[in-house]
Amino acid sequence: MDGLKTPFKGIISDVKGRLACYKQDWTEACYGLRILAPTAYIFFASALPVIAFGEQLSRETDGSLSTVETLASTALCGIIHSIFGGQPLLILGVAEPTVIMYTYLYNFSKGRPDLGRELFLAWAGWVCVWTALMLFLLAIFNACTIITRFTRIAGELFGMLICVLFMQEAIKGVVSEFSIPKAEDPKEEKYQFQWLYTNGLLAVIFSFGVLYTALKSRGSRSWPYGTGWLRSFIADYGVPLMVVLWTALSYVVPGKIPSGVPRRLFCPLPWDAESLYHWTVIKDMGKVPVTYILIAIIPAVMIAGLYFFDHSVASQMAQQKEYNLKNPSAYHYDMLLLGAMTLLCGVLGLPPSNGVLPQSPMHTRSLAVLKRQLIRKKMVKSAKECIKRQASNSEIYGQMEAVFIEMDTSQTNNSVDKELENLKEAVMKREDGGDENGKFDPEKHIDAHLPVRVNEQRGSNLLQSALVGAAVCVIPVIRMIPTSVLWGYFAYMAIDSLPGNQFWERLLLLFITPGRRFKVLAGVHASFVETVPFKYIASFTLFQLAYFLVCFGITWIPIAGILFPLPFFILISIREHILPKFFSQQHLHELDAAEYEESAGVPMRSGSLSCRDTDETMDEDVSSQEILDEMTTRRGELKFRSVSISERHHQVFPDQS
Amino acid sequence: MDGLKTPFKGIISDVKGRLACYKQDWTEACYGLRILAPTAYIFFASALPVIAFGEQLSRETDGSLSTVETLASTALCGIIHSIFGGQPLLILGVAEPTVIMYTYLYNFSKGRPDLGRELFLAWAGWVCVWTALMLFLLAIFNACTIITRFTRIAGELFGMLICVLFMQEAIKGVVSEFSIPKAEDPKEEKYQFQWLYTNGLLAVIFSFGVLYTALKSRGSRSWPYGTGWLRSFIADYGVPLMVVLWTALSYVVPGKIPSGVPRRLFCPLPWDAESLYHWTVIKDMGKVPVTYILIAIIPAVMIAGLYFFDHSVASQMAQQKEYNLKNPSAYHYDMLLLGAMTLLCGVLGLPPSNGVLPQSPMHTRSLAVLKRQLIRKKMVKSAKECIKRQASNSEIYGQMEAVFIEMDTSQTNNSVDKELENLKEAVMKREDGGDENGKFDPEKHIDAHLPVRVNEQRGSNLLQSALVGAAVCVIPVIRMIPTSVLWGYFAYMAIDSLPGNQFWERLLLLFITPGRRFKVLAGVHASFVETVPFKYIASFTLFQLAYFLVCFGITWIPIAGILFPLPFFILISIREHILPKFFSQQHLHELDAAEYEESAGVPMRSGSLSCRDTDETMDEDVSSQEILDEMTTRRGELKFRSVSISERHHQVFPDQS
Repeated sequence: MDGLKTPFKGIISDVKGRLACYKQDWTEACYGLRILAPTAYIFFASALPVIAFGEQLSRETDGSLSTVETLASTALCGIIHSIFGGQPLLILGVAEPTVIMYTYLYNFSKGRPDLGRELFLAWAGWVCVWTALMLFLLAIFNACTIITRFTRIAGELFGMLICVLFMQEAIKGVVSEFSIPKAEDPKEEKYQFQWLYTNGLLAVIFSFGVLYTALKSRGSRSWPYGTGWLRSFIADYGVPLMVVLWTALSYVVPGKIPSGVPRRLFCPLPWDAESLYHWTVIKDMGKVPVTYILIAIIPAVMIAGLYFFDHSVASQMAQQKEYNLKNPSAYHYDMLLLGAMTLLCGVLGLPPSNGVLPQSPMHTRSLAVLKRQLIRKKMVKSAKECIKRQASNSEIYGQMEAVFIEMDTSQTNNSVDKELENLKEAVMKREDGGDENGKFDPEKHIDAHLPVRVNEQRGSNLLQSALVGAAVCVIPVIRMIPTSVLWGYFAYMAIDSLPGNQFWERLLLLFITPGRRFKVLAGVHASFVETVPFKYIASFTLFQLAYFLVCFGITWIPIAGILFPLPFFILISIREHILPKFFSQQHLHELDAAEYEESAGVPMRSGSLSCRDTDETMDEDVSSQEILDEMTTRRGELKFRSVSISERHHQVFPDQS
Repeated sequence: MDGLKTPFKGIISDVKGRLACYKQDWTEACYGLRILAPTAYIFFASALPVIAFGEQLSRETDGSLSTVETLASTALCGIIHSIFGGQPLLILGVAEPTVIMYTYLYNFSKGRPDLGRELFLAWAGWVCVWTALMLFLLAIFNACTIITRFTRIAGELFGMLICVLFMQEAIKGVVSEFSIPKAEDPKEEKYQFQWLYTNGLLAVIFSFGVLYTALKSRGSRSWPYGTGWLRSFIADYGVPLMVVLWTALSYVVPGKIPSGVPRRLFCPLPWDAESLYHWTVIKDMGKVPVTYILIAIIPAVMIAGLYFFDHSVASQMAQQKEYNLKNPSAYHYDMLLLGAMTLLCGVLGLPPSNGVLPQSPMHTRSLAVLKRQLIRKKMVKSAKECIKRQASNSEIYGQMEAVFIEMDTSQTNNSVDKELENLKEAVMKREDGGDENGKFDPEKHIDAHLPVRVNEQRGSNLLQSALVGAAVCVIPVIRMIPTSVLWGYFAYMAIDSLPGNQFWERLLLLFITPGRRFKVLAGVHASFVETVPFKYIASFTLFQLAYFLVCFGITWIPIAGILFPLPFFILISIREHILPKFFSQQHLHELDAAEYEESAGVPMRSGSLSCRDTDETMDEDVSSQEILDEMTTRRGELKFRSVSISERHHQVFPDQS
């Protein structure tokens, strides 16, 4: 709580830090072509969910808000953030928590005669005003220093909740295709039983088709077939491609079927009266009764809490240590800016945007220039040669540095020293220790400390936000997408988010009989599997599951459901004060680890292939994107692949750690 | 051609050999419960395709033959073979080649005014008469001695043709669900456009549903989840279960849909006039004009060739060396009996049955009593202990024999010596050699020579055939299956047959860029990948592909298509005389190997897990069925997992081979 004594301290230091590299942020972007691929990649990754959330919001709010507004908010906030924001790697967008909160807000105001559907946006504007105020306070009083208390348990529980809500939305969506939408005329031809049923069956086919093909294309990077370019293309753009493909397929239904089957997205055009109303929401805000203005504080607390959490975590994930970013972070200043943007969205009648996962770390990753595999090979080779001829550690480091400089084609060579700092330390430290255990092991240490270069600039974020803005103009094209394709996409988002979620992985572990656990150990597995006894894993997971069911239950309560973020805030103090009474510190540290650590089940033996004589050249065609994919969870976290403990026992020079 | 000089030699020796164990074949079966599980397993594995082929035949012959006849033929021939047959492990059934030949026969006779639909079965009866005659001659003149000339290339080409024909049937089937069957009244309600389209959409859903769930359940044995019993149950009965499940789901369509949507199997009841006609086919055979009786020789040559090939190969696969069968083979006698059964089916107007793949080797496998994993562990352990205390090889073998006898609970202990013969030889041989290279390596040699016990008897085959016969009586239940479920099942049969087909695997290999071939080497892979240069693999595969396209093309020719087995017979002499001119003997031997050999990419390290200290007991819960699954291709062949060549180089005691 030291933050309270020094208001503005964080913001000022953030602003100073970012100002120093602001010009460079733009000059770097001007190198041009290199940022185009990441821009396109992030645009699709961020526009698709925003469209899906728009459709969801449109159904939940009877059309008060729709895809037009979610796209507009995402574009507006994205452009503001990419120009004025502290951390330009952070991607903003309307996210699922916002959609859920707005759904509660709508249901609340619909039920009050003195608010009603008419004043919903005006009242939501007041919620945004309060939210902005709270975000300002959080920023001013340096609250972002406490984000380290948001441990894995709360984050993964929240991720799981979003996943289940996505799945619920997908199922509800497909089921709804079999019935007549409430606002429609049941006498229309397309709502006669036979066409209704046809619509439903088509929805089943399209949604499962999208789900299956999207999941398959997601893993294309590691296919053995096809050229690297093709595989990368499918992996990067497969999901939007599948949406396009299934949309195209939806147009091959025979002409005898009445129009409106299959159903397609419904959203007003941006130049329709409904959309234009948003410019005048601010005038209606005065009409909201004072009681409701005060009541708005309750949802505002929830939203502020959610945004504080989400925005910081997304920002943190975009700036993970392993990316070796050169420019400083700006959590406090970005929180202030988020407040300002929330205020702006509120008065414009738009749902606010915040930092999104997994797009933010995806953005950083797509900008990473990683010749890791290649550099690594050469460095290990030179290090091994040095060791063979009994060179000193300084010589070894010198040699490796030379290789690194030779291989690195980036313009700014002067920062090499800084980037290799960790590696240097690792090599040199061993000099002093001198005992066998501390001996420098090239394979291990180079892997852990090898730098990644990220092209830090504001161009890609600005461009992709502008593209999202442009998408508002192509709403007529977006309206061609069948709703069932979106339900499939929701299911895809749900399933795709599960691998890498340790809560999910531990749940699965509970279904493995003791005799089959060797299967887990034989594959790549989270390291807690080896270090924590099963009964503690099981009880920790069951506690988390019970807590999860409570959280999920709350979302079903009609109006009090708005308090659904509350258990997450409570969980943070449960984690700090109650859990340590039931679990040992060490186990808790492993189960609720800050970093995603996994062990390779079978030792990697890439070397054994290259030393063989074959007719073919065996150049390993592994793109850096693929390595990054393997190193990254679906949430965008970097994983640490450590040597399996059982392997460590077999090593000649076991490590102390 | 020595066989011509000694007619009946093969048959007499077969009969003598089998008579000696005939009584035992029945007494072994009386141990009862042990054969029930294999019986049920084989019944489902053999009845489902027969039902599917029946429906296919019914469509192709406008109902002249249907599921009633295919089931009846399978049951009749199965019962005869299980009682009088030489090799009771061989499973008989109506197979796809028979269905294709009968389709050509029908199309031919339909087009001749003096045969027509009426005399089709009578004429087919004559074809069977000629076929039977040729099979008799083949049996009498010991033709089965040449089956070793049927190498992998012809067998896999034929397997691929069947696979493609299955897929074609599945696609044709699903497409046909969108249109009105030719013989039906297009005015019926269920054939109005909206219901026709609904029927088509339901067909897409059901067939993909069956395909996906059947493929998934097939692999359940290696799931990490669930108990071993459940996993085995799903793996063994998953496919029939899925057929039942999707059939049940087809009944939840709303009541407003007219009956007949979705379409269900159409076959007459066994007591309908159409089915009863078959008993009088023999009377019509006299009405067939003499010219057509003579023309019948041409298809008879084709069918005899196909049956000779199929029956022998199925029988061979059911008696692979690695199963360590105690009773002798009976190829010649079984061929004679097949002729007799073909004759019987012909005069009864039934399509004949022959030995089927993969059911025959599946049958042997399901009867194998394999405590391999358990025995192996103990034997390796005891052998290693002996080696540690410098015991002689005779001591080592004695110790291992003791463990084997202790673990083996079967009644006939007197045959242990014979079964362990190979192992004994392997251990003892090393004694003489004495040099480092020939040293006895427990891990390797025990694995290669460990015996499998097969419960050889006639009970399971008789029982499953009787069950197929009983299925004729439950035709009303079978008629509940939607046709679309069968199309999905055809697609499943096609896809399920591909893994393990080296032709297919080599085709896939062509799509892997050189830089990615390490992926193949890293996984379990066929050994030719390491031993034959890629350009030879590619040219061999391209030749095979071109030849395959010719064969597939022939099946499309209206009446001459009946000659489709011809290229396969020709291929055998191409393989013998022409291919050796283009490929070296060694490469040809690897690419067209008699045995399925594969190399493990990554060395197995099961030992490293068990030597660790953990809280849990790490008993490896691997059922013997699972190991057998892994050791067997989808066609039922046993694989040989050798040590990868790259690994051999690293071994301390490299093998000479």
